[in-house]
Amino acid sequence: MKGFSERADVEEVLRFLAERTAALAPEPVPVDACAGRVLAADVRSEVDVPGFARAAMDGYAVRGEDTFGASAYEPAELAIVGESLPGRPAAATVAPGRAVRVMTGAPLPAGADAVAMAEVCSERDGRVAVSDAFAPGKNVGAVGEDIRRGALALARGRRLRPQDAGLLASIGVASVPCVRRPCVRLVVTGDELLPAGSLPVPPRIVDSNSVVLRALVARDGGLVLPFEILPDRPERIREALLAPADAILVSGGSSVGSEDHAPRLVDELGSLDFHGVSMRPSSPAGVGRVGDAWVFLLPGNPVSCLCAYDFFAGPTIRALGGRSRAWPHRRVRLPLARKIASAVGRTDYVRVAIEEGSVVPIATSGAGILSSTVRAAGFVIVPRALEGMPEGAAVEVLLYDDEDAA
Amino acid sequence: MKGFSERADVEEVLRFLAERTAALAPEPVPVDACAGRVLAADVRSEVDVPGFARAAMDGYAVRGEDTFGASAYEPAELAIVGESLPGRPAAATVAPGRAVRVMTGAPLPAGADAVAMAEVCSERDGRVAVSDAFAPGKNVGAVGEDIRRGALALARGRRLRPQDAGLLASIGVASVPCVRRPCVRLVVTGDELLPAGSLPVPPRIVDSNSVVLRALVARDGGLVLPFEILPDRPERIREALLAPADAILVSGGSSVGSEDHAPRLVDELGSLDFHGVSMRPSSPAGVGRVGDAWVFLLPGNPVSCLCAYDFFAGPTIRALGGRSRAWPHRRVRLPLARKIASAVGRTDYVRVAIEEGSVVPIATSGAGILSSTVRAAGFVIVPRALEGMPEGAAVEVLLYDDEDAA
Repeated sequence: MKGFSERADVEEVLRFLAERTAALAPEPVPVDACAGRVLAADVRSEVDVPGFARAAMDGYAVRGEDTFGASAYEPAELAIVGESLPGRPAAATVAPGRAVRVMTGAPLPAGADAVAMAEVCSERDGRVAVSDAFAPGKNVGAVGEDIRRGALALARGRRLRPQDAGLLASIGVASVPCVRRPCVRLVVTGDELLPAGSLPVPPRIVDSNSVVLRALVARDGGLVLPFEILPDRPERIREALLAPADAILVSGGSSVGSEDHAPRLVDELGSLDFHGVSMRPSSPAGVGRVGDAWVFLLPGNPVSCLCAYDFFAGPTIRALGGRSRAWPHRRVRLPLARKIASAVGRTDYVRVAIEEGSVVPIATSGAGILSSTVRAAGFVIVPRALEGMPEGAAVEVLLYDDEDAA
Repeated sequence: MKGFSERADVEEVLRFLAERTAALAPEPVPVDACAGRVLAADVRSEVDVPGFARAAMDGYAVRGEDTFGASAYEPAELAIVGESLPGRPAAATVAPGRAVRVMTGAPLPAGADAVAMAEVCSERDGRVAVSDAFAPGKNVGAVGEDIRRGALALARGRRLRPQDAGLLASIGVASVPCVRRPCVRLVVTGDELLPAGSLPVPPRIVDSNSVVLRALVARDGGLVLPFEILPDRPERIREALLAPADAILVSGGSSVGSEDHAPRLVDELGSLDFHGVSMRPSSPAGVGRVGDAWVFLLPGNPVSCLCAYDFFAGPTIRALGGRSRAWPHRRVRLPLARKIASAVGRTDYVRVAIEEGSVVPIATSGAGILSSTVRAAGFVIVPRALEGMPEGAAVEVLLYDDEDAA
């Protein structure tokens, strides 16, 4: 057995990844499925929305001029010559002294230039009494008032919100170019592992890392490729590293022990850019490349696996998908109930609880204790320049659960 | 045409909904798909994790006593009698003066009570020199140290995080009872509507509301049922209201005009609990029930539709799925660049931009302008007790896009 010859700084690894990761190529996505995706190109509108002048209120389409001076005492009396409904315009033209009954959204009939709202109108015997004046243009939605033909509807790089998808539908787009979602292969090795859903029977344990990673990749917009647990055999791991993917997450067998085949294979098949990072937990983490795929070596201990994913794989998967590399967690700033000890030169990921408005580091024996991340509300990062954080210091907690922020 | 006889307060409608909405019944969910779901029952562990004492470091399993007094000057010399790997325990017993080579996660062999870490060991000719002392228990993961048999692993009501799903896998659970996801039917009516993906040809427009609603329902954990645009015919709307669903979103045809069939049908088939709410936009919104389904009448104007969904349908869909009713949006608190005018007795939903650290209300003619919600960073709610908010006041903005908070 040998140790790590030298450990990289977290920042160095992150810089390396950021400099070499670009958004994947675009693919067309149907407009009713594009919310949440990242737009890969500017979209300009080829139409005006609305494409026709339309009633913005229920009421009567009139020539505004006909209502000038009208009041409750002296209403304007107009002859009703038709009805315009959404999608079913009136055939009639609104000549002087005439009106057409309209519903919100209906095309404004020819000749009309305003809508007298229903609340000030009363209809009887084919005539309507309008008891207020309406200037031309009043209660009329103008052509292109929502979006003009030729205008930029949405700019590339935007993560599409629900209403963005709606706007794209309204301008008649069938599909939009979005950044392709990264395909992520999980390579979980370990002769001791039983698949999730099995009962653990000593000396075997259940693979929990793939369950956690699957959910994290989904959070970050990636697609997990079909997956099975691999035996600790180099030829099977080699095969998995060579299969097509945008990112490969190797969990287990990635340290420097005799059964740790993955680092050697990554080095042989591509480049092992980093192996060993000055951080706690996850110091055996590694980063490399095979073909077009980023390979992340995640320690098998569940907390280390989660931590190494969130530090290195998560930002890369988000960036491949066109999203922000930034931590996706909500944050709160609160005082520390107890000091956190660290060491200059090492980045620490400290699970914490929040109790009575204070941040309480969770004392635990190690990275094997997944339940510590279940008890924790989130984590605090102690940067490498600090040897710790004193009791009472205001620290930023990155929350595991979005709802905890509410 | 008639107006609304009286309008309810937003709070009254919300209280009504909250008092009558409970989480749906549980359904079993496979452990590798349960992240993000809400646990419907407490889960206790039926096993210890780990289920056996295991090495917490790479090194040598020893009897701690054999290393007492060992140092770099005077190492303890032990005979290596085997190797224990994860899932492949050693057959040998560690008798006094003996050691077994171990990898992290491997079962501790019988007789051993500590692991001497590899870094202080050197191996030669079948013997290992241990140059430090290890107390019994050192570098050993004890049975049940992650989770004890019989202990509460996770409590009901919890929205499962990635690591929670991992913990459930590690205790051997195959599936977990989760609150069923609400099934949501979209009832979009309008003879003027073309399906999303079509080019708008006047006098017809493209249905954008179903695209927005689909994304909002997904955000809130609901499942959208298969959907088609319905013609403005009462018998088709009646059919849609009677088909099974947990919630029904009626978009369009829900006001008080002659073509607005939905309110009358809801009243006839079940109860129309509210129709007309003192708010802007969305004042024609309504809430009712048909069979077991909540029915939300959402105005057809796209901004009103979004607003009425977020005020009434969203919290209800989240609550049906066991989630928090609270607004899911991230929030920032910033000063207002310009005053917002409102009216006492009315709740306003004001789209705002954020410019140079100030909140700028978006001046727009109305609820038909979907692009205003695209330009907006989020919205400010002016509660009914206020007649507005003055320039410079610190206001809370609910952000449309999570990433804007970063």
